[in-house]
Amino acid sequence: MANKPIVIALDAMGGDYAPVETVKGAIQGAKVYGVAVELVGNPAVIQTELDKYDTRGLDLRIVEALDEIGMDEVPTVALRKKKNASIAVTARRVKEGHADAMVAAGSTGAALAAALFNIGRIKGVDRPAIGVALPSQRTPTLMIDGGANADCTPELLVQFARLGRAYVQGVYGIEHPKVGLLNIGSEEGKGNAFSKEAFALLKSATDLGFAGNAEGRDFFISEFDVIVCDGFSGNVALKSAEGMATLFGRLIKQELTRNIWTKLVALLAKPILEKARKHIHHEYVGGALLLGINGICIIAHGGSSALAIENAIRLAVAGVKGDVMTKMVEASRLNRDALLAVEEGEVSEISAV
Amino acid sequence: MANKPIVIALDAMGGDYAPVETVKGAIQGAKVYGVAVELVGNPAVIQTELDKYDTRGLDLRIVEALDEIGMDEVPTVALRKKKNASIAVTARRVKEGHADAMVAAGSTGAALAAALFNIGRIKGVDRPAIGVALPSQRTPTLMIDGGANADCTPELLVQFARLGRAYVQGVYGIEHPKVGLLNIGSEEGKGNAFSKEAFALLKSATDLGFAGNAEGRDFFISEFDVIVCDGFSGNVALKSAEGMATLFGRLIKQELTRNIWTKLVALLAKPILEKARKHIHHEYVGGALLLGINGICIIAHGGSSALAIENAIRLAVAGVKGDVMTKMVEASRLNRDALLAVEEGEVSEISAV
Repeated sequence: MANKPIVIALDAMGGDYAPVETVKGAIQGAKVYGVAVELVGNPAVIQTELDKYDTRGLDLRIVEALDEIGMDEVPTVALRKKKNASIAVTARRVKEGHADAMVAAGSTGAALAAALFNIGRIKGVDRPAIGVALPSQRTPTLMIDGGANADCTPELLVQFARLGRAYVQGVYGIEHPKVGLLNIGSEEGKGNAFSKEAFALLKSATDLGFAGNAEGRDFFISEFDVIVCDGFSGNVALKSAEGMATLFGRLIKQELTRNIWTKLVALLAKPILEKARKHIHHEYVGGALLLGINGICIIAHGGSSALAIENAIRLAVAGVKGDVMTKMVEASRLNRDALLAVEEGEVSEISAV
Repeated sequence: MANKPIVIALDAMGGDYAPVETVKGAIQGAKVYGVAVELVGNPAVIQTELDKYDTRGLDLRIVEALDEIGMDEVPTVALRKKKNASIAVTARRVKEGHADAMVAAGSTGAALAAALFNIGRIKGVDRPAIGVALPSQRTPTLMIDGGANADCTPELLVQFARLGRAYVQGVYGIEHPKVGLLNIGSEEGKGNAFSKEAFALLKSATDLGFAGNAEGRDFFISEFDVIVCDGFSGNVALKSAEGMATLFGRLIKQELTRNIWTKLVALLAKPILEKARKHIHHEYVGGALLLGINGICIIAHGGSSALAIENAIRLAVAGVKGDVMTKMVEASRLNRDALLAVEEGEVSEISAV
């Protein structure tokens, strides 16, 4: 091979359907995107899964990590003791330069803690945040923060905006992204005390391309490329939208199964409706981004299928190809506050999803 | 007539499609629910609309209100000068005992201001809030606050919980409603500083039937009857869900119009899908409630059709029949702080939708 391949480190043991779905997803990802995948976890268990498939010609590597974090353990506490938990080793593959990005399914809190401990933050970033690329009819709108920081300062939102802007520039090739602030009205002067303060600060940061207030609906149907918010509001928005989508889907199903006639129509309509549903389902979205960490980290849904893992790998590859780390590091130089080394104490404050 | 009929005062001039749709909606409401409707506004204009229909046997009354608030005026400011604006007169019909409830379409901020000025608050309630009965597969879940108070104290959330609980008891006949706090995790201890404080306070109020933390999705798919939140988060949840529903609908439409075959299927599927869409559309939901005002006030969507007005009347009638005012006044006696008379200064703080 002339060019060094892109290498994705995958926590093969993470998520509700690991290792069956994670290994299968790794194989699909390696095949579809032509990348190397490091499968991190218990080698014997991973090998058993790999043996089920024809993996000839694929660059799949097993990396040993034998510590396990039990369901009853607090991830941030357990991670301090179990240095060889698969999620910790996965993060270190990035830190040590073996992998270009990491992918993990499962607890966002655990992944964030592992990334903070083992990779650290971008210089100038005070707190990492969860980025979520939300479905729309155009390029996705990036929400930051989706729930890592329940309490935010207005200054943090400016940092989020820089990270998000750089990410969108890299991955979607949008030179001048439209950056908005989540608020409850589009006019200046609307909102609560926090959003008014954040508005003023974002407006004064001339590097941001700040386009003013966005509203909840703008996550899904607008021209905004990035919308920044505190992690509480972001998480409320995500879960409210999820609840509505679930309800809408259930109501459609209810109507389609009402009688013989509707069931007949359902047979014809289902494959078509399924395409619409796919567009907004987490399996296809690919997962959340940990932005502000000094490496590309994708966190897939805890209930990830092989397809969800494959799409998380797609997201990781897009970040590598778009050179988002260079762009985010560069943008964060403008942050006022210098980076302090990652302090263990901070991790307990993470209020992640 | 042996029994005194229920009387609903309707701002006939409010909303984007007034008076055409408001008058038509009033006629439908009077017919379907057997109530008297007072049409408040310009008598000549209203009469012209009424003349288009056969209204024999219906109890429709015209109430004169000739002041108009222009599109360029700030409603709260204009309301102080224009005492005979239709929204102000509509509110006074309730205050003076002529009507049992008021219905208005258009600006929530203007309606809230008019209700505060002309009706006042329930004794013990510090701030009125917007209640929204959200669609679900069971009885609706009542959100309070949907956007009247962008900044809240934890004490206010306890007051909202009392109002919501009393409302749900009256309208849905649920004796022991399940009351939740909007948060970003279901376990105790999750959330931001505000939600943690609110949790402790709600838990300590033993009259509330507090059932713990709810999440965004619980507005649409849960067993909670009431979910309290600050107006910022509530508004974000509402608009995010609205955005998702709009996107989902557009994606379905996009797939159904993709080619000849899908268009054929669409012909069959549309009437069925329409039933699902209706369930979550604002026309059928009926509008928002102004809770904490000393009278039943329903605010319909600014873009209300006749059907939306009819459903807003349904909501108003349900409140009257469920005797929610007595119940809310009774519940609010437990609020710690005594009522102060409505001060004009307060209205400028309204951050309504």
